[in-house]
Amino acid sequence: MIKGNSKIVSLAEGIAKSDRRSLARAITLIESTRLDHREDADTLLEKILPQSGNSIRIGISGVPGVGKSTFIESFGMYLISQGHRVAVLAIDPSSQRTGGSILGDKTRMELLSRQEAAFIRPSPASGTLGGVARRTREAMLLCEAAGFDVILVETVGVGQSETAVSEMVDMFLLLLLPSGGDELQGIKKGIMELADMIVVNKADGDLKPAANRAAGEYHAALGLMRPSSPNWKPTVRKCSALHDEGIQEIWDVIKEFRTKLWASHEIQDKRVRQSVSWMWGEIRESLLVAFCDKPEIQSALNEMESEVTQGRLAPATAARKLLKLFSNA
Amino acid sequence: MIKGNSKIVSLAEGIAKSDRRSLARAITLIESTRLDHREDADTLLEKILPQSGNSIRIGISGVPGVGKSTFIESFGMYLISQGHRVAVLAIDPSSQRTGGSILGDKTRMELLSRQEAAFIRPSPASGTLGGVARRTREAMLLCEAAGFDVILVETVGVGQSETAVSEMVDMFLLLLLPSGGDELQGIKKGIMELADMIVVNKADGDLKPAANRAAGEYHAALGLMRPSSPNWKPTVRKCSALHDEGIQEIWDVIKEFRTKLWASHEIQDKRVRQSVSWMWGEIRESLLVAFCDKPEIQSALNEMESEVTQGRLAPATAARKLLKLFSNA
Repeated sequence: MIKGNSKIVSLAEGIAKSDRRSLARAITLIESTRLDHREDADTLLEKILPQSGNSIRIGISGVPGVGKSTFIESFGMYLISQGHRVAVLAIDPSSQRTGGSILGDKTRMELLSRQEAAFIRPSPASGTLGGVARRTREAMLLCEAAGFDVILVETVGVGQSETAVSEMVDMFLLLLLPSGGDELQGIKKGIMELADMIVVNKADGDLKPAANRAAGEYHAALGLMRPSSPNWKPTVRKCSALHDEGIQEIWDVIKEFRTKLWASHEIQDKRVRQSVSWMWGEIRESLLVAFCDKPEIQSALNEMESEVTQGRLAPATAARKLLKLFSNA
Repeated sequence: MIKGNSKIVSLAEGIAKSDRRSLARAITLIESTRLDHREDADTLLEKILPQSGNSIRIGISGVPGVGKSTFIESFGMYLISQGHRVAVLAIDPSSQRTGGSILGDKTRMELLSRQEAAFIRPSPASGTLGGVARRTREAMLLCEAAGFDVILVETVGVGQSETAVSEMVDMFLLLLLPSGGDELQGIKKGIMELADMIVVNKADGDLKPAANRAAGEYHAALGLMRPSSPNWKPTVRKCSALHDEGIQEIWDVIKEFRTKLWASHEIQDKRVRQSVSWMWGEIRESLLVAFCDKPEIQSALNEMESEVTQGRLAPATAARKLLKLFSNA
C-alpha cells in the first residue's frame, strides 16, 4: 500500500512536470484491468483531477481513406507552431480484432510523433466500447494534467464509437471527401448530426471543383438539421491536409466555437453533463456485469433467451424471472 | 392464488373470444404496479402469448397539429371497411403531467371509437418512458391475442418516445405538414431516420401545391440518408385525412412493405431482436431501480454527484465507490 502510494505520488509529480514517460506510464496504469492497478488508478486520478480540464477537447472522425492521419499531422504541426501542446488519443473498439487499426502505427504521423509538444497514444487494444471509451476519457484527463491544451480524439467513421467520442469532447469535427451526396449516403446514420464542423479534405489539384460542390451539398444537408446549440450553427470548411492549406481557417473556427460556447457557459455545462452521465454509464455497466457474472444467471440465461425468441415467454416476464434468481442468489 | 388463477383463466378465455371488456380489464391489469397484479399479469401473458403476433404493427408519429387523430380515424375506418380489426394504442410519457394529452379523449376519433372492429386505448397515464413503453408493448400482445390484426401505436412527435415506439413496431410512419424544409428543421434529430414512410397530410385545397413541393423536399431529404433495410427504401405519400383522400395508397405501401420484409424474414428477425432487447432493457432498468432504492446509495448519491460535477472526483471513481457501497449493503 505504501509502495503503491509512493509510486502514485511520483507519477503525479511527473505528470505535473509534463514528463512524458510518467504520462505514458500513468496511461498504462489506467488501462490495466487488474484490481489493485484500478485502485492505484483511482488514487492517481483523484490527485491529478484539479489540474485537468484546461484544454479544448476535439473529436475527429471520418471514414477510412479521408486522410485523418494526414489531417491530424498537418493540424497538429500548425498548432505546435502556434505554441500549443497537442495530445492525440483514439477510440477504436475494433482494434482488439485488427491489432490496432488506428494510431497503432505512429509512422502514420511521422513529423508530429517526433515533436516534444505532441503526445500520441493509440486506442486501448481490448475491451468493450464502454471500456475503451472510459480509458480514453481518463487518458484525456491525464494529458490535460500534463499540460496538453489541445486534445484530439480520433475515431473511425463507423457509428457507435462516434457517439462515444462526442460524449467526451467539446466539439466534434467530421472529415469528409470531396465526393458530395454519394458520400453522405455511406455515412452512418446520426453521425452528420453530431458534427459541429465539417471539413472537406483533399480540396487540392483536380479535386478542387468537386470539393467546392461537396462543401455546398454538405452545407445544404446541415441546413436541414436542427442545430444542437442555440449559439452555434454547424459550419463547413475545405482544406488540403497534404499541402497544409486551409488549416489555419479550421483553427479559427474552433477558436470561435470555444469563445462563443465558453461565454454562454455551454462548454462548462456540457462537461458537467458528460461527467454525470459518464458516472451513471459506469454504474449501469457494472451492475449488468455483476448480473451476468452470477452463476445462477449464466445457467438460466440461454434458456430464457430462447423462450423469448421462440415467443413462449414475454420479454418482461423473462426479465422478472431472471431478476428473481439474481436477488435470491 | 386459486382465485387469482381462475380470474386469469376467464380473462384469457374472454380475450380468445375477442371480448372487448376482457381485453380492457386485462390491459388495466398489466398497467397496475401492484406486485400481486404483476404476477397475475405475467401468468396471463404466458397464456395468451401463443395467440399473439398475427398483426402488422405500425408506429405513427407527427408533431401536434399535423392531424394524427384525423388520420387515424380516416385510416382506421378504411381498414375496417376492408375487413380488418384495428387497435389503436399510444405512448405519451408526458400524459402523467397533462392528464392524458393524446388519445385521452376518445371523441377525437368519434367514428372509429364506435366501431366494433376498433379498440382504442389511451397511453398509460404514469411512469417513466420505459414503464409506459412496456405496458404499451404488453397491451399490443393482448390486442393481437384478441384478434386485432392491425395495431397502430400513436406517439407525439417530440423525440424519446418515437425511438421507444420504433423499437416495438414493424413499420414506422411519420406524418408531416405541407410546409417542407422549414418543418424538417423543427423535427427532432433522428426521427426522420426512423421513418419507413413519410405521409404529407393536409394535401387538400389551397395546400395542394405546397404539399407537392414538400413531398419533393422530404423525398430528397430521405435520399440523403442510408436506408436501414436492404429491401426497403423509405417512401413519401400525400393524403388528405380530412377528405379521406390518399388513404388506400398508404395502405398499399404498408402491404408492400409487409410482403417484402416478411418474405426476406426481416420482420420476423426484427421482432426477435426487439424481444431480446426488450428483455435486456427490463433487466437494466430493474437493476438500476434496485441500486437507487438502497438507502446506502440514496444517502451517498448526492454527495458523489456533487463531487463529480465540481471536478473533485473522476466519474468512474465515484461510480466504483457507489458500487462498493451497493455490494456491501
